Amino acid sequence: MSLPDRVKIVEVSPRDGLQNEKGIIAAAVKIELIDRLTSAGFQNIEAASFVSPKWVPQMADGAEVMLGIQRLPDTIYSVLTPNMRGFNDALAVRADEVVIFGSASEAFSQKNINCSIAESIARFEPVAQAAKAAGLRLRGSISCSLGCPYQGETPIQSVVDVAQRFLALGCDEIDVADTIGVGTPKRVRQVMDAVTRIIDPARISGHFHDTYGQSLANILASLEAGISIFHTSVAGLGGCPYAKGATGNVATEDVLFMMDGLDIETGVDLNEVVDIGMWISAHLGRKTASRAGSALAARKAA
Amino acid sequence: MSLPDRVKIVEVSPRDGLQNEKGIIAAAVKIELIDRLTSAGFQNIEAASFVSPKWVPQMADGAEVMLGIQRLPDTIYSVLTPNMRGFNDALAVRADEVVIFGSASEAFSQKNINCSIAESIARFEPVAQAAKAAGLRLRGSISCSLGCPYQGETPIQSVVDVAQRFLALGCDEIDVADTIGVGTPKRVRQVMDAVTRIIDPARISGHFHDTYGQSLANILASLEAGISIFHTSVAGLGGCPYAKGATGNVATEDVLFMMDGLDIETGVDLNEVVDIGMWISAHLGRKTASRAGSALAARKAA
Repeated sequence: MSLPDRVKIVEVSPRDGLQNEKGIIAAAVKIELIDRLTSAGFQNIEAASFVSPKWVPQMADGAEVMLGIQRLPDTIYSVLTPNMRGFNDALAVRADEVVIFGSASEAFSQKNINCSIAESIARFEPVAQAAKAAGLRLRGSISCSLGCPYQGETPIQSVVDVAQRFLALGCDEIDVADTIGVGTPKRVRQVMDAVTRIIDPARISGHFHDTYGQSLANILASLEAGISIFHTSVAGLGGCPYAKGATGNVATEDVLFMMDGLDIETGVDLNEVVDIGMWISAHLGRKTASRAGSALAARKAA
Repeated sequence: MSLPDRVKIVEVSPRDGLQNEKGIIAAAVKIELIDRLTSAGFQNIEAASFVSPKWVPQMADGAEVMLGIQRLPDTIYSVLTPNMRGFNDALAVRADEVVIFGSASEAFSQKNINCSIAESIARFEPVAQAAKAAGLRLRGSISCSLGCPYQGETPIQSVVDVAQRFLALGCDEIDVADTIGVGTPKRVRQVMDAVTRIIDPARISGHFHDTYGQSLANILASLEAGISIFHTSVAGLGGCPYAKGATGNVATEDVLFMMDGLDIETGVDLNEVVDIGMWISAHLGRKTASRAGSALAARKAA
C-alpha cells in the first residue's frame, strides 16, 4: 500500500452535520462545537452556510456563529455561499474560504434547481471572481459524484466536466462528494483516477456518506488514488434527505481510528474528538452514529 | 485494483450472531433464520455450536436446530466443536464442517482458558483426527488475530504460528478473526500477507467485527491480499463481549453491497438478505445494525 503520509480532515459537522437537524440549535452550541473542534486540532472546519434562512432555517445564525468563535490563524473556517448576498455576508465575517457547489447529475440539477449543471455553475461566476479579488480561498463541491436518487450511477465524464468548470472558475480545492452514499471502492477509485488526471490530487477531497456503510472502504480506495483531503463529521452527524433515518456523513472518529492504524498523520486528537462526539450526541438526545466513538467512549468509562 | 472475481460469504448469524443474545431464542426461529439464509444463496452457514450449555445457554438447542433445517446438498452447515463430546454431537446431526478455535494472543489464552496457545490447540487433536476419519471438513479459527483486550496488538508471528498448528491438524480452511474489531487495513494486509505466504489464500477467510467501524476497509485490504472468503452476519447480529453496547460482526448487507459494486460474485441475493435482516431485527426488538440494510429497506418501503 502506497498511501499519503499526512491527510487534511475537513470537519463538516457544524454545517453539513447540523443543517438537517429539525429542532433549531442555539448559536452558543454551534460556537462551542466549533471552538472544541479547533482545540482538537482540525485545520479546516466547515462552519456555516450563508443561504436563505427560508431554505435552511438551521443555518440562519451563520454570522453570529462566525463572529462568536475563537479562531486560530492557521485554521481555515469555510462557509457555503450560493450567491453574492451570501458572499458579502461571508466577507463581512472574514470567512477564510467560500464554497460553491453543483451536481454532477443532470437529472438532480434539473429536478432540484430547475436548470442545467452548466447553468448552475455559471451562476457562481460572480462569487468566484469576488472571492479571488478578496484573496479568499475558493472551494467547489461536486455533489452526486457517485450516484443520484433520480438517474442512478453518475457518468464519470460528468464529474470530470464539473471539476473542469470549477477549475476554470479558479477553485483552489474541489470536492468529490458522494451525497447519497451509494459509491463503492472500485467506482470511487475510477472517479478519483479520472479527476486526478486533470487536477493535482493535493487539491481534491473525498466527501463520503455512510448511508450504505461504504465510507471507510471508499476513503481507503481514495487514499490509494493519492487523495489526501477528507470530509468527516463528528459522531456521524448529518442525515440523508433521500433515505429517511439513514446514516449521514462518515464519522470523524471512525476515520481517525483508521488513519492512526495506517500511520497517517492528521494533526487531530482522537481522544478529544471522542469527547466532543459524546457531548454533541447527548445534547441532541441521541446515540452517537460513530462506531469507534461509541467503543472508545465505553473503553474510557470502563 | 486486482481483486478476486468471486468470494464465498460464510453467514455466521445463527451461531456467532445469536450466541451473545440474552433472551433465549426459540429453536424454531433459528431454523427459520437458517432456512431463509439457505434460500438466499449462502454456500456456507455457521449453524450451531456444540459447547456446554453451561457456557453458552443460547446454543443448547444445536441438535434440534441442525435436525430441523431444510438442507441443500451444496451448502456447508458448520458447527463449533470444542471437544470430542461436541464432535460426536456434530457427527450425529451430520454437520458438514466442524470448527476448532484458538487465540493468537498468549495473554488471552492464559486469561480465558488458563493454558498456553500451544496447549489449547493440541487439545483439538482428537477432534481433528476424528473429523478427518469421518470425512468432514475441518476449519480452524484464529481469534484475536489483530489485537486482544489484554495485550494490545497481536504479533504477526503469533498468527502465523497458530495458522501452522491448524494446518498441521489438517484444517481445510483457516479464519483470521479480528474478534474485538481493532484491526485497520494496513495491519490486516500485513497479517494476510504473512499468512498467505504459508497457506493458499483460497483456504483463508477474514472474520471482521465492526466495533470501530473498520470492517469494510479491512475486507477491501484482504481482497487486495487475495482473500476470497469472508464471514458476515445479517443485520450485523452479534456483539462484542469486551466493549459493551458495541457493534458486532460486520453486517452481511453492507458487505454484499460492496461486493456488488466491486463486480465480485457472491451467489447471494442481497434483496432477500435485506428482508431477512429486517425480520430478525424486528423479532429481536431492535433496529438493524446494517447501514445498507436500513437504507435498502427504507428504499423498498418508499
